[in-house]
Amino acid sequence: MFPNKKVQKLIGSKVQVEMKGDLHLLEGTLQSADDYMNLHLIDTVEMADGERLRSLGSVVLRGNNIIIVVPMEN
Amino acid sequence: MFPNKKVQKLIGSKVQVEMKGDLHLLEGTLQSADDYMNLHLIDTVEMADGERLRSLGSVVLRGNNIIIVVPMEN
Amino acid sequence: MFPNKKVQKLIGSKVQVEMKGDLHLLEGTLQSADDYMNLHLIDTVEMADGERLRSLGSVVLRGNNIIIVVPMEN
Amino acid sequence: MFPNKKVQKLIGSKVQVEMKGDLHLLEGTLQSADDYMNLHLIDTVEMADGERLRSLGSVVLRGNNIIIVVPMEN
Amino acid sequence: MFPNKKVQKLIGSKVQVEMKGDLHLLEGTLQSADDYMNLHLIDTVEMADGERLRSLGSVVLRGNNIIIVVPMEN
Amino acid sequence: MFPNKKVQKLIGSKVQVEMKGDLHLLEGTLQSADDYMNLHLIDTVEMADGERLRSLGSVVLRGNNIIIVVPMEN
Repeated sequence: MFPNKKVQKLIGSKVQVEMKGDLHLLEGTLQSADDYMNLHLIDTVEMADGERLRSLGSVVLRGNNIIIVVPMEN
Repeated sequence: MFPNKKVQKLIGSKVQVEMKGDLHLLEGTLQSADDYMNLHLIDTVEMADGERLRSLGSVVLRGNNIIIVVPMEN
Repeated sequence: MFPNKKVQKLIGSKVQVEMKGDLHLLEGTLQSADDYMNLHLIDTVEMADGERLRSLGSVVLRGNNIIIVVPMEN
Repeated sequence: MFPNKKVQKLIGSKVQVEMKGDLHLLEGTLQSADDYMNLHLIDTVEMADGERLRSLGSVVLRGNNIIIVVPMEN
Repeated sequence: MFPNKKVQKLIGSKVQVEMKGDLHLLEGTLQSADDYMNLHLIDTVEMADGERLRSLGSVVLRGNNIIIVVPMEN
Repeated sequence: MFPNKKVQKLIGSKVQVEMKGDLHLLEGTLQSADDYMNLHLIDTVEMADGERLRSLGSVVLRGNNIIIVVPMEN
């Protein structure tokens, strides 16, 4: 399964996403994803050192600025 | 709904945008958006720690340097 | 009007451009722009804190490294 | 053999990947790779100075933010 | 004239190029340029504060990491 | 000769490559290169201040994160 398809299979479940820039780790429920790995997350929170920093709600992330997507099964 | 379409649905409403580089958070009314997530905002202000830093008015943002787009319903 | 078209409408007028990297704010007259937002500016000056830092004249800016384009009507 | 094909030949074996941003070196087993060098790794660990920093498990890495891929034959 | 064409018109003449990353300003004679603004320079020197830092000779610069190209007529 | 072709002509010979991110200068023998300037190097070493920092062997470099490629004829 190609990496893009792996991401699309995560729609509906919780993911952690690390972005370029100054944002800390984001956690949210993956709502949609396209072939460029642009992501739409809902119930998104910004985390720092395992603590909730702020609640962002519904957000769109630009695919080329995504470093890593980690499924949160645990 | 794909992430790009989610952004295009925000046309006419206020958004927060975090860019790469030294700019602080931008807030403005989304005027147009294309498939690369290039954005045209009007009434744009640069914010720092919740305060207006400076007024930028009409601006064009290059899509690949956008980190996150957050709708401002609240 | 799409963001790219908004930029192309600025040809012939003065713009401010913030780039990635160490350059400060650039101000110049937009000579041409393509669909990737590559820009050709003339009479370009690099500004810092509202003061002219150095004169660059005719320059070409790579579109993907542009953060923001701001029209200078004032 | 083109660089992309070299990466695809590594599927099933362990690789080290250095990303842009704040992540340290990642080590994992390459599960899939596409033509953009987007990678799906499993059993991924983040390493710092040769020590395991944290276990990430299954991750997807955005190709354009990959700096270098190093096969771990040793 | 589009920005890319402006760059291609500079083939054979001296240019200054600012790159992303840690390199200082590069000066060299533009040998070739493609539509992505990948550049081949010869007689390239790296400059810092107006002084020659080191001689690099023939180099290839990746277009997407170019910030600005400045013709050196003076 | 276009910049990409200039790089492909270097296959089989030694090159220096500067990448974005925290890696120091890489030196290796160019094994293959594609149109995106993705590179496969062998016998790669990471250099700092003219000294070998560590040996990396066979590596794949993502083209868009390459700043500069310098042939090592000397």
